Amino acid sequence: MTATKPPSGTRDFLPDDVRRREYVIGVIREVYERYGFEPLETPAFENIETLLGKYGEEGNKLIFKILRRGEHEERGDADLALRYDLTVPLARVVAQYQNELPKFFKRYQIQPVWRADRPARGRFREFFQCDIDSIGSTSPVVEAEELGAVVEILRSLGFVDFRILLNHRQILTGLLVVAGVPSSQHEAALIALDKRDKIGEAGVASEFAARGIDAQSAERLFTMLREFYTPSSKPVGLVNADRFTSLDGYLGTTEYSGAVDNLREIVRLVKGTSAAEYVNVDPRLARGLSYYTGAIMEIAVPDLAGSLGGGGRYDNLIGLFLGRDVPACGFSLGLERIIVVMTERNMFPTDVVHRAVDVMITMWNEDTRGDALALASDLRRAGLRVDVYPEAEKLGKQFKYAATRRVRFVAILGDDERAQGNVSIKDLGSSEQQTVARAEAGAFIKQRIEANG
Amino acid sequence: MTATKPPSGTRDFLPDDVRRREYVIGVIREVYERYGFEPLETPAFENIETLLGKYGEEGNKLIFKILRRGEHEERGDADLALRYDLTVPLARVVAQYQNELPKFFKRYQIQPVWRADRPARGRFREFFQCDIDSIGSTSPVVEAEELGAVVEILRSLGFVDFRILLNHRQILTGLLVVAGVPSSQHEAALIALDKRDKIGEAGVASEFAARGIDAQSAERLFTMLREFYTPSSKPVGLVNADRFTSLDGYLGTTEYSGAVDNLREIVRLVKGTSAAEYVNVDPRLARGLSYYTGAIMEIAVPDLAGSLGGGGRYDNLIGLFLGRDVPACGFSLGLERIIVVMTERNMFPTDVVHRAVDVMITMWNEDTRGDALALASDLRRAGLRVDVYPEAEKLGKQFKYAATRRVRFVAILGDDERAQGNVSIKDLGSSEQQTVARAEAGAFIKQRIEANG
Repeated sequence: MTATKPPSGTRDFLPDDVRRREYVIGVIREVYERYGFEPLETPAFENIETLLGKYGEEGNKLIFKILRRGEHEERGDADLALRYDLTVPLARVVAQYQNELPKFFKRYQIQPVWRADRPARGRFREFFQCDIDSIGSTSPVVEAEELGAVVEILRSLGFVDFRILLNHRQILTGLLVVAGVPSSQHEAALIALDKRDKIGEAGVASEFAARGIDAQSAERLFTMLREFYTPSSKPVGLVNADRFTSLDGYLGTTEYSGAVDNLREIVRLVKGTSAAEYVNVDPRLARGLSYYTGAIMEIAVPDLAGSLGGGGRYDNLIGLFLGRDVPACGFSLGLERIIVVMTERNMFPTDVVHRAVDVMITMWNEDTRGDALALASDLRRAGLRVDVYPEAEKLGKQFKYAATRRVRFVAILGDDERAQGNVSIKDLGSSEQQTVARAEAGAFIKQRIEANG
Repeated sequence: MTATKPPSGTRDFLPDDVRRREYVIGVIREVYERYGFEPLETPAFENIETLLGKYGEEGNKLIFKILRRGEHEERGDADLALRYDLTVPLARVVAQYQNELPKFFKRYQIQPVWRADRPARGRFREFFQCDIDSIGSTSPVVEAEELGAVVEILRSLGFVDFRILLNHRQILTGLLVVAGVPSSQHEAALIALDKRDKIGEAGVASEFAARGIDAQSAERLFTMLREFYTPSSKPVGLVNADRFTSLDGYLGTTEYSGAVDNLREIVRLVKGTSAAEYVNVDPRLARGLSYYTGAIMEIAVPDLAGSLGGGGRYDNLIGLFLGRDVPACGFSLGLERIIVVMTERNMFPTDVVHRAVDVMITMWNEDTRGDALALASDLRRAGLRVDVYPEAEKLGKQFKYAATRRVRFVAILGDDERAQGNVSIKDLGSSEQQTVARAEAGAFIKQRIEANG
C-alpha cells in the first residue's frame, strides 16, 4: 500500500481550506484590477537556464530540477526547473512578447512557486505568490501606486497594525560608502544586513568580520543604522520627516542624494492616498535579492517574524533576456503568511467557510430515484446548490448526514408527496417542515434563504 | 542572453488569454457547485511512488520526474513527480483524510497536470483538468448526476452539437467473451479498441493480430460492434432503445447482463434531467485508462478528433491507498480542448475580453503627480478600475496610449481644472469632453458606463 501523506513541505487543501484561500485571492485580484493591473500566467516549469544564476548561489540550490525524459532519463541531468518566483518568468515574457505588450505593462500574477527550503512553520516548498509589476517607467508614480494597492489589500482583509518599510538600494550603498566599506564588499554586506531580524546586530557584526569588513567601518555603519530604529509607538509621518533630515545629513552632498530625493518624492505622492499612514522610511531595510536597483519595500506586522510581502525596483533584470534594459518595479504578497496571520487572529468573515449545499434531496426508495433527480434539476435551475442522497437508506440517517454537512434544507419526496405533485421541505435549522407544490419548491427555499441568511 | 520562449509544450497566457480561461473556469466551477461538489486542491508534485504504476507502462514514461536535491542531486535519481492527473491524488487524499471527509465525498478540482507527451496541435505538456468525482456510493444516481453537470456546463458555454457516449467496462468484457477472446487478452484488446478513432478498424485488427488474438474472434467482435455505429442524424433516444435490445440479445443470459441493466438505469435516471437528449449508449467506447470498473463516459463533438472530456467508475483505485475498496466515479473536462473549439467557433461572449481599465488619468506635469494619484484614489474608492499614466508626456501621446489599451475614459487635471477643483473627463468612444467637480467624477463616469456599457 502506498503512503498517503502529501510530499514534505506541501499541503492538501480540503474544501474549507480552498474557500479561505479563494476568499483572500479574490480580494487581492479585485484590488489589483482596480489599480489597472492585468492578469498573466506562465508555465509551472521553465527551461533550466532561464532560472539558474538569477537568484544567487543559495537560490540555485533551492530550485527543483526536472529530469530529462525518455532515453536521456538515465543520464540523470535536468533540462527544466520549477518556477522559483514570478519575477524572472515575467522578465522572460516581457522580452518574448515585447511587440504585443503595452509600453507600460502592468500585470498581476497569482500562481504557486516551489523552493526546496527546509520546511518549517509557515514555510512551505509549494506556496503562492501574488505579484504586481509595472514595466516601462522610472517614475516614482509606479512605486506609489504599488504601495497604494498593497495597503488597500491589507486594509480590505482587516489588517490595521502593519507598516510598509521603504528604503532605497542606493541609500544603503551610500551609507556603506560613508562608513568606509569598500565597494567590493557591498554585496556581502547587504546579504548580512538582510538577516538582522533573524540573527541580530551581533550576528550581522560577526558575518561582517567573517567577510573581512573591518570593525571600525562596521561600527560606523551600525551607529548610523541604530538611529533609524522605530519604536512602534511613534507616528509614521513624524518618523519619515526625521529620517529625511538624517539622510540628508549623511548623504546630501554625495552622489547618493538622488536616492534620498527619490524616496522623498514617493512619500510625497503616497500622501494623498490611503497608503499615507502606513509607509515608513526605514534605511535599515536591505531585502535579500540581488537584482534590486532602486526603492525597496517590505510589509512588517508585529506578531510575525518575516514579512507578509515585499518588493522593489529592478531596472536591469529584463535586460538579461532582452539585451537592453527596461525599468521595472514590483511587489509580491505571500499568500500563506497572510492566511497564517489571519487564521491565528481569527480575521476571516464567518461566511467565508460557507455551506457547500443549500438543499439535500432525500432518497425515498430506489424507484423514486428518477423523481429525486428531476426535482434536483428544477432546484438547480432556480440557482440553488443541490445534493441528492444517493442511497435509499433510513430517512433519519439521511437527515443526520445532511446536518453534518451543514446543509440547511432537506427535501422529501414520499409516496403522498409524489401522488399530489408536492414536496416536503424541512428546515434543519428551525426543524419546521412544510409541504409545497413541486413547481414552487425552488422559490420557497430561495425566499427562506434570503429572509434569514 | 537567455532564450525567451516558454518550454516546449507549455504556453504563456497574456491578459486576454487569462480572461478567456477564467471565463470558462468560472462557468465550470459555478455548475459543479450547484451540483453539490466541493473544491479540493492538491500539490503540484507527489512522492514518485504515489504515481508510478498507476497509469500503465505508457503513462510511467510520460511522468515528469524531479531530481533529488542537495548532496543527492549528483546521483541523478528522482524522488518526486509532477501530477499526471487529478484522480490518483484524490485517491490518496481520500485515504489520508478518511475521518475528516463526509461519507459521500463529492469534490471538484481544477488544476494543471503535466505529461511529457510529444506536443501537437491542442496537445500540451501542461494542461488543466476540471474534474468531479463522487466517492462512497455505487448508486447509478452518481453517474446520472455527473452526466447532468457536464451537460449543463457544455450547454452554458454554448455547445449544442455534442453527444455523451456511455458504455460499461463489463459490457465490453462480455462482448469479448461472447466473441471468444480469452480473458488473458482482454486488457490488450481494450487498449487497441481505444485507438479506433485514430487507427480505424483495420488498425485495430492488425493490433489484435499482433497481440495474438485469433482472426475469427476479432471478426465476431467487429461484427457486433459495427452494429452500434451511430449515424449522426439518428435521434439519441431511439438509438438507446435499439441498443439495449441488441445488448440484451448478446449478453442477456450471461453474467454481464447486470452491466446492461446498470446502463439502462442510468439512462432512465437521466431522462428527467437536461442531459437526456445528449446521452448516447455506445458499446464501442473503450477509454484508455486501466482502472475503470463500471460505466465509462466520453464527450464527442463533430469537429474534434479526441474528446472534450470523459470519465467513469473506478471502484478499486482508492483501495491501493486505503487497503479496502471504496466505490468512486468521476468525470474530467479538458479545459484547453474546450477553449480550442470555442475559439475556432467564435463562441466566446464579446465582453469576456473586457477593458482592463475604465479610466486613465493623464499626467499634466511632474508637480501634479500627487493630484493625479489622489484622484485615482477617489475613483478607485468608487469601484472603478483606474490607471495613472506615469510620465508627463504630451497629452496627445497619452490619449493615444489609452486608446490602444481600450480605455474608454481619460481624466485631465490641467491648471484650470486644478485651480477650480474640477476634472475634465473625455469619452474616447464618443470624443465628448466634459468638466465636472472632482468630488462627482466617480459617479459621473459610473453613470456613463452603466448607461451604455
